[in-house]
Amino acid sequence: MIDFRSDNTGRAAPEILEALIRANRGTALGYGADDWTAALQHRFCELFETDVRVFPVATGTAANALSLAALSPSWGIVFCSEAAHINTSEANAAGFFGGGLKLAPVAGEHGRIGAERLAQAVAAIAPGQLHRGQPAAVNLTQASDLGTVYSLDEIRALGEIARARGLKLHMDGARFANALARLGCRPAEASWRVGIDILSFGATKNGGALCDAIVVFKPELVDSLAVQLRRAGQVWSKMRFASAQLLAYVEDDLWLRMARASNAIAARIAAGLAGLAAAQLVAPVEVNEIFLELPSAVMDALEADGFGFYRRGPTLARFVCRFDTTEAEADALVSALRRHLKSA
Amino acid sequence: MIDFRSDNTGRAAPEILEALIRANRGTALGYGADDWTAALQHRFCELFETDVRVFPVATGTAANALSLAALSPSWGIVFCSEAAHINTSEANAAGFFGGGLKLAPVAGEHGRIGAERLAQAVAAIAPGQLHRGQPAAVNLTQASDLGTVYSLDEIRALGEIARARGLKLHMDGARFANALARLGCRPAEASWRVGIDILSFGATKNGGALCDAIVVFKPELVDSLAVQLRRAGQVWSKMRFASAQLLAYVEDDLWLRMARASNAIAARIAAGLAGLAAAQLVAPVEVNEIFLELPSAVMDALEADGFGFYRRGPTLARFVCRFDTTEAEADALVSALRRHLKSA
Amino acid sequence: MIDFRSDNTGRAAPEILEALIRANRGTALGYGADDWTAALQHRFCELFETDVRVFPVATGTAANALSLAALSPSWGIVFCSEAAHINTSEANAAGFFGGGLKLAPVAGEHGRIGAERLAQAVAAIAPGQLHRGQPAAVNLTQASDLGTVYSLDEIRALGEIARARGLKLHMDGARFANALARLGCRPAEASWRVGIDILSFGATKNGGALCDAIVVFKPELVDSLAVQLRRAGQVWSKMRFASAQLLAYVEDDLWLRMARASNAIAARIAAGLAGLAAAQLVAPVEVNEIFLELPSAVMDALEADGFGFYRRGPTLARFVCRFDTTEAEADALVSALRRHLKSA
Amino acid sequence: MIDFRSDNTGRAAPEILEALIRANRGTALGYGADDWTAALQHRFCELFETDVRVFPVATGTAANALSLAALSPSWGIVFCSEAAHINTSEANAAGFFGGGLKLAPVAGEHGRIGAERLAQAVAAIAPGQLHRGQPAAVNLTQASDLGTVYSLDEIRALGEIARARGLKLHMDGARFANALARLGCRPAEASWRVGIDILSFGATKNGGALCDAIVVFKPELVDSLAVQLRRAGQVWSKMRFASAQLLAYVEDDLWLRMARASNAIAARIAAGLAGLAAAQLVAPVEVNEIFLELPSAVMDALEADGFGFYRRGPTLARFVCRFDTTEAEADALVSALRRHLKSA
Repeated sequence: MIDFRSDNTGRAAPEILEALIRANRGTALGYGADDWTAALQHRFCELFETDVRVFPVATGTAANALSLAALSPSWGIVFCSEAAHINTSEANAAGFFGGGLKLAPVAGEHGRIGAERLAQAVAAIAPGQLHRGQPAAVNLTQASDLGTVYSLDEIRALGEIARARGLKLHMDGARFANALARLGCRPAEASWRVGIDILSFGATKNGGALCDAIVVFKPELVDSLAVQLRRAGQVWSKMRFASAQLLAYVEDDLWLRMARASNAIAARIAAGLAGLAAAQLVAPVEVNEIFLELPSAVMDALEADGFGFYRRGPTLARFVCRFDTTEAEADALVSALRRHLKSA
Repeated sequence: MIDFRSDNTGRAAPEILEALIRANRGTALGYGADDWTAALQHRFCELFETDVRVFPVATGTAANALSLAALSPSWGIVFCSEAAHINTSEANAAGFFGGGLKLAPVAGEHGRIGAERLAQAVAAIAPGQLHRGQPAAVNLTQASDLGTVYSLDEIRALGEIARARGLKLHMDGARFANALARLGCRPAEASWRVGIDILSFGATKNGGALCDAIVVFKPELVDSLAVQLRRAGQVWSKMRFASAQLLAYVEDDLWLRMARASNAIAARIAAGLAGLAAAQLVAPVEVNEIFLELPSAVMDALEADGFGFYRRGPTLARFVCRFDTTEAEADALVSALRRHLKSA
Repeated sequence: MIDFRSDNTGRAAPEILEALIRANRGTALGYGADDWTAALQHRFCELFETDVRVFPVATGTAANALSLAALSPSWGIVFCSEAAHINTSEANAAGFFGGGLKLAPVAGEHGRIGAERLAQAVAAIAPGQLHRGQPAAVNLTQASDLGTVYSLDEIRALGEIARARGLKLHMDGARFANALARLGCRPAEASWRVGIDILSFGATKNGGALCDAIVVFKPELVDSLAVQLRRAGQVWSKMRFASAQLLAYVEDDLWLRMARASNAIAARIAAGLAGLAAAQLVAPVEVNEIFLELPSAVMDALEADGFGFYRRGPTLARFVCRFDTTEAEADALVSALRRHLKSA
Repeated sequence: MIDFRSDNTGRAAPEILEALIRANRGTALGYGADDWTAALQHRFCELFETDVRVFPVATGTAANALSLAALSPSWGIVFCSEAAHINTSEANAAGFFGGGLKLAPVAGEHGRIGAERLAQAVAAIAPGQLHRGQPAAVNLTQASDLGTVYSLDEIRALGEIARARGLKLHMDGARFANALARLGCRPAEASWRVGIDILSFGATKNGGALCDAIVVFKPELVDSLAVQLRRAGQVWSKMRFASAQLLAYVEDDLWLRMARASNAIAARIAAGLAGLAAAQLVAPVEVNEIFLELPSAVMDALEADGFGFYRRGPTLARFVCRFDTTEAEADALVSALRRHLKSA
């Protein structure tokens, strides 16, 4: 199979697993009181150019749900895109870890929340109205669930709307590296400098193996998050094996190199389809995902050719590029698509 | 430092990390729909000689809390030992994942629940009494939190009390391998054949790295547990890297060989202290932990000698042996203890 | 002020408060083990022509949230109308009491769920998809939050869609009496005979004072609901004072007489506006509520005239009739509306 | 039956029900925005001689659980007496409303927490220890669940221990009036002046009908409590009928007159038993409850005589006096007890 199903079907970067092996020496205190975790803490402060706190966690769902639980009271309302992963794909983990907090989906273009729509949604709940729960936070998926990227200006604008009402800002960065590669800016510029309070720092989809992380930019959120992580069963006793993975992930820009690679493959596919009227992109290709309107028969034909991808609707196909997807695989997909779409 | 602090301060077995590296080839579907997880499922059915379902999870806290949430309604009461890890050390994860379920600590000897005490505690809540919550399950820590082991007869007796009232039985097997090595019986005999409904299958403390597991013996518990694990952020998208660890853990009896090794070191220390009146064991040494009443000055002296261990009280010290603790380290500890206790 | 603000701004029926006084004699066991509650139980079985269980509760929010918690696991999805009270007005009580359950709003006409839309929404979550939570129940507001009424055929159709997927059916009957008066059928016909599993039986909005009730048609739901009510602080120790209210509420058809009265007043207003092109009803007037598109200036003018009502949007006004709203008040409103709309 | 079963088996004071009837005039805004609730607010500020916020609720369980949820994060630990009602009798409502908070029972004499024991229990959880949850609050039952009363000095001492660790203080005042009558001090002296942050203000057990209240002394707790009450279904839409009851309850010292009456009857019984060696009180009789060690045969004989009371153990009987228990009933009980104990 030529696999475009997801970026989580892929291998881990060998550097990450090797780091895990290298960490397997001597004894070390449990639950994060080890040298690797201390180094990770130091490294992320450098990386984000400010004093952050980083907590390794097992999954992006844990990162998102616990980040929101740290930002919102249990009676809070969290605004998010209708397409947001926390809304469509995490078995209501946010509502569970948040003790009943409620997601309020907001419409927008290409998987992003629109500023005007956010303003309206927030304004629709007057301060002091107790029958609605209380607006507490805004969640942005960066890159979005349709493979698009918020510009720094867009984030700033959303952040201003949020802060005007006292709402906190969470970024679901399951594909933060891909977004950063696209934006071409520094991690700080794409996060706390545009108002993000807490970041789900994804690694798994971009060549990681068994952990993601939460990066906290607001020190006052740290203590309660730390105990909630423990209670959530998200604090490994042999934490060094998680921290070593994350250290390797950002060493020598490995993460950005991998993100650039998968973005480039997606761009190559998009370029290959340019000018083909029948190939209708659902959203601009800005990172490593391609959403195409495709006749069902074309999807059948692609599968018969041996391509793997997800059907997101009767005529909606998603193709995802991994850090190690090859140009040859991309070209084969383009060629097959052109062939089947012409005859469709 | 000569480290007797915990079995989670130790290295992972090299075989386990190597398996992780070997799993890093090709693409594989996420969230457990991969070949390694299928093999794990098959392997655990063989291992337990019945049709089980095994779910890898990140930590023992997750295994315990989600197991109990699968057994008990949110208004349930779970009986456990006063010393139980779920009661003393997991930040009330059971209460949280259980939606408010309540632990009812029961007294007993050497970290175990006593059968008579359990019977009394259960009887104290009459059926239909709505002001107490409803008895739902019993939790046994095997090996116990004082390093002792329930005999199969003891488990059977507790299980009968439980079943007579319709209560389910959960085993917290953070040190299940150590207990099994002690009992000298097969996994099936120490679990479902003596009435266990669901098992927290520990690996981390016994040479594992980044995962433990839940083993479900009752098929009717599987579906709701599966969705709760997803919601809990305990289902890795690249699950193969967890399953590969667990496969290696049980391959060629690795787990039992490691458990026998750490048990043997603890027995060696206990034997070395035998006949020394001043060395008062708090509980019999049945697995890899030694709890000693020690004058504070003796603990100071041991630390000055370079020994690492935990002070569990002003005069209570805990020493834990790992799979790779050496006989020389054990003998050094015995010798230091004999020396300091004589002069105390 | 001539008050059309809500049916909860009104008085209680004197018969209900007098019953409360009559219940104030002798001693009686607490928490529902009294003669009044036994009589209530018996009376509601007669009323609904089947074996039901009735639980008095303090509020409609409690009735709804605890009913849904009885029907759905904490990882469940409950489908409801976008306009549903549980979705817009109860501070996410359903999500809280349900331990994280999620509401899935479904579009439809005039405050009702459309059958086709429900079928689509249910079908969009394939069985076994763990990343979404699990479809568990459907909530119908009868009368709806736009003052319309589901026909028995409509409920049957929705119930069939629900049952085909194993979903339970909850009716939020905050205005059940008004709906029943409109439908002109018996309580049984409007509830369990069309597939309702559990009913929030409203009294407060229709001349009650301090309690509503939950009516359970499925015996298997009773035990867990009973303990959840206790835990929710919804079981009065002097329950007789609640049960006496509900007994008086249904005595001699008092509830239906009051509902018919408030419905008739609303119909009188609607009739008074008929033929007035400028008076645009947002939904047909089928019970005791009138939703009108009104220019803001007309709303200002009505307030200046001394009318009380709620502005549900910049140009949306809601007028609610109570059991004791008079024909003169209705006529005054019609006359004011005609006057202001003409000059608008 | 001569009823000593509980103070919740009794009638309501007629004044309270009459006030309810008087409140049944005109229309009034819902959810507490009415004149009666405003008057209640004003009256309680006078009563407690400071700026308080009072919230009527349906039951004492709701008052306790929501008070604790306002004081403690969901990962908090609440210290309480082993005998505390929240620990033994409320179906773990505190754990549920508190989102998983855990009760830590502390031993003490006669149903009260001992200061030294509290200090030890708090000290046993070192600051920063994430595996235990975080100490958050102390709960005192006043009068206690064995019918004894904390002195003001005792409360002050417990409060100092609590504040030294940053813990909040909740008083479960289900029998606050009885305790106050015993102490002979003003409400302010028995609450915020000795460090209480929030008070469950009981009325039902002391002649109330359908509501108790939460009295908040710390303004910063008000906003989040208000929305939690709404979410809990504890905010009546026709709130005037609850507020009117509470206004009548404190009017002309009605509450204290009733509490003095029931206390006096209990004292009369205790006095009647004085000098009778066989009558062993389990705790001093300080309010309206009498706990007696009684042979099972004596309890049988009392029941045969027509006395109602609760068996709290095989040889433990509880007798509770209501505001309207008569001296004749008290004397009959004394006489029967003397007779049966002599022959026992």
